[in-house]
Amino acid sequence: MIDKLIEKIQKTGAPIVVGLDPMLSYVPEQVQKKAYEAYGETLAGAAEAIWQFNKEIVDKTWDLIPAVKPQIAMYEQFGIEGLQAYRKTVEYCKEKGLVVIGDVKRGDIGSTSAAYAAGHLGKVQIGSKTYAPFDEDFATVNPYLGSDGVRPFIEVCKEEKKGLFILVKTSNPSSGEFQDQLVNGRPLYELVGEKVAQWGEEHMGSSYSYIGAVVGATYPEMGKALRKIMPKSFILVPGYGAQGGKGQDLVHFFDRDGLGAIVNSSRGIIAAYKQEAYKEFGPENFGDASRAAVEAMIADIRGALG
Amino acid sequence: MIDKLIEKIQKTGAPIVVGLDPMLSYVPEQVQKKAYEAYGETLAGAAEAIWQFNKEIVDKTWDLIPAVKPQIAMYEQFGIEGLQAYRKTVEYCKEKGLVVIGDVKRGDIGSTSAAYAAGHLGKVQIGSKTYAPFDEDFATVNPYLGSDGVRPFIEVCKEEKKGLFILVKTSNPSSGEFQDQLVNGRPLYELVGEKVAQWGEEHMGSSYSYIGAVVGATYPEMGKALRKIMPKSFILVPGYGAQGGKGQDLVHFFDRDGLGAIVNSSRGIIAAYKQEAYKEFGPENFGDASRAAVEAMIADIRGALG
Repeated sequence: MIDKLIEKIQKTGAPIVVGLDPMLSYVPEQVQKKAYEAYGETLAGAAEAIWQFNKEIVDKTWDLIPAVKPQIAMYEQFGIEGLQAYRKTVEYCKEKGLVVIGDVKRGDIGSTSAAYAAGHLGKVQIGSKTYAPFDEDFATVNPYLGSDGVRPFIEVCKEEKKGLFILVKTSNPSSGEFQDQLVNGRPLYELVGEKVAQWGEEHMGSSYSYIGAVVGATYPEMGKALRKIMPKSFILVPGYGAQGGKGQDLVHFFDRDGLGAIVNSSRGIIAAYKQEAYKEFGPENFGDASRAAVEAMIADIRGALG
Repeated sequence: MIDKLIEKIQKTGAPIVVGLDPMLSYVPEQVQKKAYEAYGETLAGAAEAIWQFNKEIVDKTWDLIPAVKPQIAMYEQFGIEGLQAYRKTVEYCKEKGLVVIGDVKRGDIGSTSAAYAAGHLGKVQIGSKTYAPFDEDFATVNPYLGSDGVRPFIEVCKEEKKGLFILVKTSNPSSGEFQDQLVNGRPLYELVGEKVAQWGEEHMGSSYSYIGAVVGATYPEMGKALRKIMPKSFILVPGYGAQGGKGQDLVHFFDRDGLGAIVNSSRGIIAAYKQEAYKEFGPENFGDASRAAVEAMIADIRGALG
């Protein structure tokens, strides 16, 4: 799957991922209205609204991009019905040939991580049958519990040729509270980065590992250090755009070959129609606004990478 | 909700929580068979099997215990259908008057944590209507992202009078890999514990805070230190029984009043019928075996607390 991701990045020339994080406030009124007419102002109505919103954005951008990253919290907040929209979104994006990174940030003790891994990346056995319940291509994982919380995910990835992005240095303002604490003179996130590099050796693709890392665009200097600590790990870079990261900040997350990183934008793409720069599209053409925002993001990053 | 939890602990004399973590391998064959006859060997069949399993255990133990802790991974592994069984389990346990601790270990950047918090502990607004999608009483939260990943959960807890248990020192063997790293001569988990104490001050019940901590029974010395660092935080203690923790290890997690901690056992209770000590019950009376295991656990902890 890491090889497929790289192949698609090379084909599209776009090391980017669109974050499908559909807050209801991003969904244009006409889409919400139609969904509520069909399902009422219910969890099912909200789920329908975010699914239709996603579908339009995917339909308007899939040919430009290698991957999407649905943030499961935005679906889980609408309960079972919301999670059905998540499942449908994953499935639809895979049909479109997109690589799907499930931003689930799971992580627990061994047997529990094994259950999450089976549900999201692998298969479960029920009597004589097997099922792949959520079936994302990659998942994000929280490392706070250490190796035996991460390894069950790696085991499933090996079986299924799938991958992980493990939280190393997150993009949010208070990420440093624990992640930057110095351990023997070095920040904790570097230790986590070293572990990611080690775990990555257990499951290599042809040039990069299936086991990648999350490092926020908002911390470019740290990205530079981590790029060296994890030479074979792909870096998923959130925080571009709405969170403040810019193309020029991202150069050091990449290798000289222009690979090694994939930059996520969520709000900046999916709610583009709300921005001054794209308001001419209007809410009715929100998908076209997203396409224009994807094109601008690709140009920005290509420009920065030279 | 922390006051309700304390009241129920005092009434039952049992500072314990039953972990409803139904691996399919724990579910007796006759329960699985019946579920598959009704729904086939499908995700819905597995969901029915774990729901019926839970229901029997709850029916046989609810009067002895203050709380349950369903581990969402064990449901999520069966996809949407599994999560329906989770929802049903939460609802049923609340009907029985039990406090429900959703062991979800969520945690993300601010806006995303807000979505998880709304979905699990709070409400979502859809048009003119509001819904409480999962509606647990407490949730477990991963602190790796720092304050702005935790605070949205606290905000919702304040509105809803609900609570959290934040991962401080987890029960698994490799928890020390990051959690024990020394920062200025002190382990990281103590720093996290200090933060939990600070966060806890923002949302106090009448004697303890709504914001508690998770500290594994497998690390009693650390529990002793953390008890002092977080004097007003309830400690949720996993790792009793199957993971190796014993009643005598737990004394220092508690305050002198016998409060301040609640000890979880999952496999040791719900799969009791598989143990040598309870095998006379047989798989057909698995609920009675669980009741006997609950009684033994209460006696062990009461004995240790003297």
